[in-house]
Amino acid sequence: MTTFAVLGSGGWGTAVAVLLAQNPAHRVRLWSAHPDHAAVLRATRENTRLLPGVRIPDSLQITSDPAEAVASADCWVTAIPTTYLRATLGRFSALRADDAPVVSLTKGLEVTTFRRPSEIIGELLKTENVAVLSGPSHAEEVARGMPTSLVVAADGALAPWVQQRFGTDRFRVYTNGDLVGVELAGALKNVIGIAAGICDGLGFGDNAKAALLTRGLVEMTRFGVAHGAEPATFHGLAGTGDLITTCFSPHGRNRRVGYRLGRGEPLDDVLAGPQVAEGVLTSRSVFERTSRSGIDAPIMTAVYEVLHNGKSPRSAVQDLMTRSQKHERL
Amino acid sequence: MTTFAVLGSGGWGTAVAVLLAQNPAHRVRLWSAHPDHAAVLRATRENTRLLPGVRIPDSLQITSDPAEAVASADCWVTAIPTTYLRATLGRFSALRADDAPVVSLTKGLEVTTFRRPSEIIGELLKTENVAVLSGPSHAEEVARGMPTSLVVAADGALAPWVQQRFGTDRFRVYTNGDLVGVELAGALKNVIGIAAGICDGLGFGDNAKAALLTRGLVEMTRFGVAHGAEPATFHGLAGTGDLITTCFSPHGRNRRVGYRLGRGEPLDDVLAGPQVAEGVLTSRSVFERTSRSGIDAPIMTAVYEVLHNGKSPRSAVQDLMTRSQKHERL
Repeated sequence: MTTFAVLGSGGWGTAVAVLLAQNPAHRVRLWSAHPDHAAVLRATRENTRLLPGVRIPDSLQITSDPAEAVASADCWVTAIPTTYLRATLGRFSALRADDAPVVSLTKGLEVTTFRRPSEIIGELLKTENVAVLSGPSHAEEVARGMPTSLVVAADGALAPWVQQRFGTDRFRVYTNGDLVGVELAGALKNVIGIAAGICDGLGFGDNAKAALLTRGLVEMTRFGVAHGAEPATFHGLAGTGDLITTCFSPHGRNRRVGYRLGRGEPLDDVLAGPQVAEGVLTSRSVFERTSRSGIDAPIMTAVYEVLHNGKSPRSAVQDLMTRSQKHERL
Repeated sequence: MTTFAVLGSGGWGTAVAVLLAQNPAHRVRLWSAHPDHAAVLRATRENTRLLPGVRIPDSLQITSDPAEAVASADCWVTAIPTTYLRATLGRFSALRADDAPVVSLTKGLEVTTFRRPSEIIGELLKTENVAVLSGPSHAEEVARGMPTSLVVAADGALAPWVQQRFGTDRFRVYTNGDLVGVELAGALKNVIGIAAGICDGLGFGDNAKAALLTRGLVEMTRFGVAHGAEPATFHGLAGTGDLITTCFSPHGRNRRVGYRLGRGEPLDDVLAGPQVAEGVLTSRSVFERTSRSGIDAPIMTAVYEVLHNGKSPRSAVQDLMTRSQKHERL
């Protein structure tokens, strides 16, 4: 029996908890930051807002008590948005009894520190035993048992350990040794997702969008390599794969921000609301880095200019299209 | 004044002819293989079936006479399906007055010979002055002036020559030195397009499709590199970019074949009709190569098995998903 503590009861955390609980050799606890939400989940066995119609099996324990969640867990799974990651893990740092592996599901970069989720986890939980699970994976589809392929990145024996416990015939997990690349790809794709939404909102077509994804991936790779990633990772499931779902799914939060801006909604309206799309924050962090280091990233810069500098989406795209025509640098 | 002869009045040939004719410094002639079709186009100034609503400018001459089409042309543009390329060019080979550059718009591979379109052109027209224009480019969008980015691959000064004459602020042309890679990517993506259609027809979701594209691109790259292509080309507009439009556009002929098979239509019904989708032929050529040379290409092999060996689409996908979970080889 392997015991999992899944920290975070959003759509993705819940979907992975449900997936893990389908294996009779697993005991799974799902921790919610909100006691009220935990009570509703326990009573209804359904996350009606994020995963409507998906039954949470009775064997899955739901709690809002950190100590209860992680008690004798063999594996911690963190499914907490980047913005709340540091504060939330602070509630768990005293609860590390042993060095149980931590599987991070978080995609993003900490704004002020530029830290990757696995670095924040390592710092707060005082561990190097961290794996990152990433790739094209809408929570609803995983929760409904639709076929999905991902990568797990970790050092040494941890990656195959996770692969063996998380993988099923409908949830294929490939191992990948480039943790930095997998995490940077997962953060940067949200910025390109906003650009893809702008493209859709302006009514541009498939040609423009395919070109945008292709050139966006070139920028992501260039940025990643400058920060220690392997270029090949960006051509894998955590790069190309995740970028495609982010840019094509009508439901993605980042694409949605861009779409509304492209349709002409005022920036303040689009950015209002309780939770800011991850790419909005990432675009600022990335711009600070690219402008300082001279990395050529015209699409990500255009997204920054639209979100943080008042540039109109149409003129941002116009400027991208009318740059001088060059050799295809990849 | 530059004179262009566009050979082939299908959707893509017509769209490129219309694009070229928008430049007042260009004289453009469009050649149709069918005198009746040429007469209709001349009379109505519209390709109602393939480009409805797009006006063919009066300045664009339309003819079905090969000699008239290419008379004193500074540039030949070939927009002829692979299957008809050899026979059609045979009608033009005696008409080469000088070594005017030829820009190939054809995507595919000759079934029996495994020749790329530029090789067939070189052989029939006895020239090495051949460029290939490729990338994500639905004809309807280009004809309507929607933003599009492509690559032109050619040796030496020809690529920038084409870039300068074909490029506009809505039709960006990047140069690329890897003609073999650009052509192989343009042919192989049709096979993955069929696989993506099967995935859609079976009702699988965004996760599966994104993973399929990612792993399909890995196979395309591996195959291309084994045949002399540069790997980077497959991550550019002719690779990733064109693959995305092929797999996501609801109108693409290759995706459509896969979609109907995935929905359960009998193979014979799907393959009936005047023109076979390019990927159906390419999958056979590719299978012959991969099985002989041992190139690992499970997705392209599965497409071959479904199209040419009677395997059911569902079990083909099932077999792909239940292969042992591995390291992500890119």
